[in-house]
Amino acid sequence: MVKFTWPIRVYYEDTDAAGIVYHANYLRFMERARTEWLRTAGFEQDDLRNSHGIVFVIRDANMRFIQPARFNQQLVVTTELLTLRRVSLEVRQSVHHTDELLCEAVNLIACVAAETLKPKRIPASIIKEFSGGD
Amino acid sequence: MVKFTWPIRVYYEDTDAAGIVYHANYLRFMERARTEWLRTAGFEQDDLRNSHGIVFVIRDANMRFIQPARFNQQLVVTTELLTLRRVSLEVRQSVHHTDELLCEAVNLIACVAAETLKPKRIPASIIKEFSGGD
Amino acid sequence: MVKFTWPIRVYYEDTDAAGIVYHANYLRFMERARTEWLRTAGFEQDDLRNSHGIVFVIRDANMRFIQPARFNQQLVVTTELLTLRRVSLEVRQSVHHTDELLCEAVNLIACVAAETLKPKRIPASIIKEFSGGD
Amino acid sequence: MVKFTWPIRVYYEDTDAAGIVYHANYLRFMERARTEWLRTAGFEQDDLRNSHGIVFVIRDANMRFIQPARFNQQLVVTTELLTLRRVSLEVRQSVHHTDELLCEAVNLIACVAAETLKPKRIPASIIKEFSGGD
Repeated sequence: MVKFTWPIRVYYEDTDAAGIVYHANYLRFMERARTEWLRTAGFEQDDLRNSHGIVFVIRDANMRFIQPARFNQQLVVTTELLTLRRVSLEVRQSVHHTDELLCEAVNLIACVAAETLKPKRIPASIIKEFSGGD
Repeated sequence: MVKFTWPIRVYYEDTDAAGIVYHANYLRFMERARTEWLRTAGFEQDDLRNSHGIVFVIRDANMRFIQPARFNQQLVVTTELLTLRRVSLEVRQSVHHTDELLCEAVNLIACVAAETLKPKRIPASIIKEFSGGD
Repeated sequence: MVKFTWPIRVYYEDTDAAGIVYHANYLRFMERARTEWLRTAGFEQDDLRNSHGIVFVIRDANMRFIQPARFNQQLVVTTELLTLRRVSLEVRQSVHHTDELLCEAVNLIACVAAETLKPKRIPASIIKEFSGGD
Repeated sequence: MVKFTWPIRVYYEDTDAAGIVYHANYLRFMERARTEWLRTAGFEQDDLRNSHGIVFVIRDANMRFIQPARFNQQLVVTTELLTLRRVSLEVRQSVHHTDELLCEAVNLIACVAAETLKPKRIPASIIKEFSGGD
């Protein structure tokens, strides 16, 4: 499976008084990257919500914070599909600065009904797109 | 009019790499204080949305940033009603640390329909509560 | 070991367009709770930084998101010390609404030098406080 | 003066339970745009801090919120220099979605010493760059 990469710039808003990126913001960066990964594959999440009634929510996050990112750095976030099931998918994601690994995570993402937040099947078009020739 | 006061602690999440509270977060602090001001007067915003179909949104913010707040400080946010109209209200808000004024703003808040975000009358119960003996 | 509890109110800033608390904010809530847990035990993090030259940073976060929190809910965050080592400590943290468990995590926190972010011994006063009669 | 434009995508993290971009985040978007405006002119803020000992901080923000931005929209933020003084500069900034104006502001930005946060002259190289043939 090819890794999808997405660039993210560190702004003041992302940092804290310790001079580094505030840890919760790596979850934000990873969610931006998943959004762009889906978009690049042809899936807009507002369309998925309006036409399929689904949203993706995170179920588990297992994160390691290895080195801090700093103000003004240009980071790269990777997203790699590990497993694809009927109502969930698992991705490995990382944040790098140049060649240095700063943070990595395995995140379990569930597909749920937008109204009830109960599990709902991932649309067939997504299954088809991502279960293909990887 | 008595000023409503609400305490807010500065956590790491609120600061940036300049060592001070990130400026956009004063708008967050002021919105928390308005929420607690309404709650103290007996109005829960989820009830207002569910039973009256309204939400409050900000229309104008005129802010002066005077001194920076820092990590771990205990701040006090004040809220003072300046004018109350049929579909909007204007408040003066400030953020202090001990006796020092850090930030002040005059904010115009509009009452809008939750679904359409079009202007909608402020509920009579709120008008009654706040137009009283000030 | 007694669990430390800390109340947190959900404001608009904490929610997202899915109508629920944005997932990264549970990490914020847990960090606020750790800050208050240390404060209650007598340790102010700005003092620790100024007099001992240390800051605490998160190394691992292992989170399960079980049920969503919603706007205006009053949550309770718990913090329970699992292990205390020379340069790190492990805590179990949870977020509840009334009796319902919304999110739980085991977080590994490292003590590092404020300037270099290299591992540094946890101050003896903290070790003494937390290694006591639990 | 030519307006500088910068694209910003709305992610879930930017929205709130009212289904729209949380108001404080427009200040974030505007600060990202100012950072990119300076970068495009050749000025990196970490370099300015390290070599000139300065940071830029906001002094006044006068904002009008006209229409809400929504999840997944591609916005454009503009930055236009209004006045350039020895220790401060004033910019007009706007946020558009397609042709629709969502938010506009006039923001006063001060140059301060990174250590003391006291006013300090804007570096001559910046003055020269921006006081040119506009």
